[in-house]
Amino acid sequence: MVTDIDCVLTEKAITTFISEYTSKAGLKGGVLGLSGGLDSSLVASLAVKAFGRENVLGLILPYRDSSPASKEHAELLAQNLKIRTMVVDISSMADGYKIETDRIRFGNLLARIRMSVIFDISHRDNLIVLGTSNKTEMLIGYTTWFGDNAAGMYPIGDLYKSQVRAMASHMSVPSEIIDKPPSADLWKDQTDENEIGLSYETLDYILYKLVDQRMSTDDLVDKGIAKNNVERVFSLVKKSQFKRSTPPICKLSSRTINTDFEYLSQW
Amino acid sequence: MVTDIDCVLTEKAITTFISEYTSKAGLKGGVLGLSGGLDSSLVASLAVKAFGRENVLGLILPYRDSSPASKEHAELLAQNLKIRTMVVDISSMADGYKIETDRIRFGNLLARIRMSVIFDISHRDNLIVLGTSNKTEMLIGYTTWFGDNAAGMYPIGDLYKSQVRAMASHMSVPSEIIDKPPSADLWKDQTDENEIGLSYETLDYILYKLVDQRMSTDDLVDKGIAKNNVERVFSLVKKSQFKRSTPPICKLSSRTINTDFEYLSQW
Repeated sequence: MVTDIDCVLTEKAITTFISEYTSKAGLKGGVLGLSGGLDSSLVASLAVKAFGRENVLGLILPYRDSSPASKEHAELLAQNLKIRTMVVDISSMADGYKIETDRIRFGNLLARIRMSVIFDISHRDNLIVLGTSNKTEMLIGYTTWFGDNAAGMYPIGDLYKSQVRAMASHMSVPSEIIDKPPSADLWKDQTDENEIGLSYETLDYILYKLVDQRMSTDDLVDKGIAKNNVERVFSLVKKSQFKRSTPPICKLSSRTINTDFEYLSQW
Repeated sequence: MVTDIDCVLTEKAITTFISEYTSKAGLKGGVLGLSGGLDSSLVASLAVKAFGRENVLGLILPYRDSSPASKEHAELLAQNLKIRTMVVDISSMADGYKIETDRIRFGNLLARIRMSVIFDISHRDNLIVLGTSNKTEMLIGYTTWFGDNAAGMYPIGDLYKSQVRAMASHMSVPSEIIDKPPSADLWKDQTDENEIGLSYETLDYILYKLVDQRMSTDDLVDKGIAKNNVERVFSLVKKSQFKRSTPPICKLSSRTINTDFEYLSQW
């Protein structure tokens, strides 16, 4: 596969990144939401290597309609890793919102409420929030802005979904989690691939060629990839740039935050 | 004052920024939380100039303990500007969280719940979220990360608080709002200046000299500013850098998001 990686080296790079950045922030452990899915299972496994199992807290944050399998898989993962967990049912918080929504908007609301809980516990226990976003979903914007994409760091933000899968195998994540279809579980029978309209295999291939190998959309069509798929992915990446950036500031002074004044090294 | 500005020019620059960025995003109006305070009142006034009053929606988001004056001032402002408002009481959402907190953590929770509501309505009505953060609070980190500092853009992110006050006068924000002590109203009798431990006048002066004029802390002490105040402000700016940045990604590939792959212009 184009996205093959050296799992041993990748494990070492990510665990070093996690522990060094966290200790520079003056903290010694991490908290994350465990969804029972591939991304959070991998990040939890890497965090255990980085911090030791006693310094990793997994939050299980079900809504009343969440699939029971999500919670079961989160608990299975936590048992395997021997990490502490805490279950916070977010149903009453979410149902406290009385404005009529649709399922997309309600899914975003759930993601933002989960973020609010994870950050509160991170503050209570002095833990960094470990983000679980991967490169595929960040590039196409398949995340809730200020929801699941809000974090203190992104340990797997440079791994495509197929690389996440390979790393999860390497880290001995239970096969029940590796083998099920990826889903945000924001409504019944949701799967990522149905919602995006492309398989992760195709998506990762196109993204890798466009981003990492700097090919043009025409190059990819010449290689036999369906033009509408290539254009669709290209457009998703363009349209979601705002989610990967800090919001723009209206520049008025000679030294504006994030334009002229960004790095601590300038001080 | 060191932070004197040309209000006419500033008004023109900000309203142009608001309307150009929003139209590039394919939208034609904005939504913001109205707290009854100076920052949101100024942003709402500028948004009315940029979009016309029919394209600005003000959300009033009280918690049961919020000061009644906050809501009254938000309504007064909205009446003056003749913009639509919507009141969403967030008490039941916030009280749905059953974990014991302290007032700082609960204040952050309220800020994040408000963010969740504002973004949901922005999605429903196709409006951009207008951030109300100013340069003073962004530089010292006096914001809730992924709460009140979450926005689609920051129209007044390059204005110090004293400049916000001058602009609010210029835009005819009601004097009740301009004259009251700034407060996040996250608990009873909270004021920004008491919580920060410095007046905005001192804070803005020190920040302007350090950031805009690139003076050292020693220079400022030589100018007669108390050393402990200068060092305190310097330290707040350093410690809050993470809130002004996108979270770091563990770099593994040759083209990592936000390190090597950031601008649409590269495409």
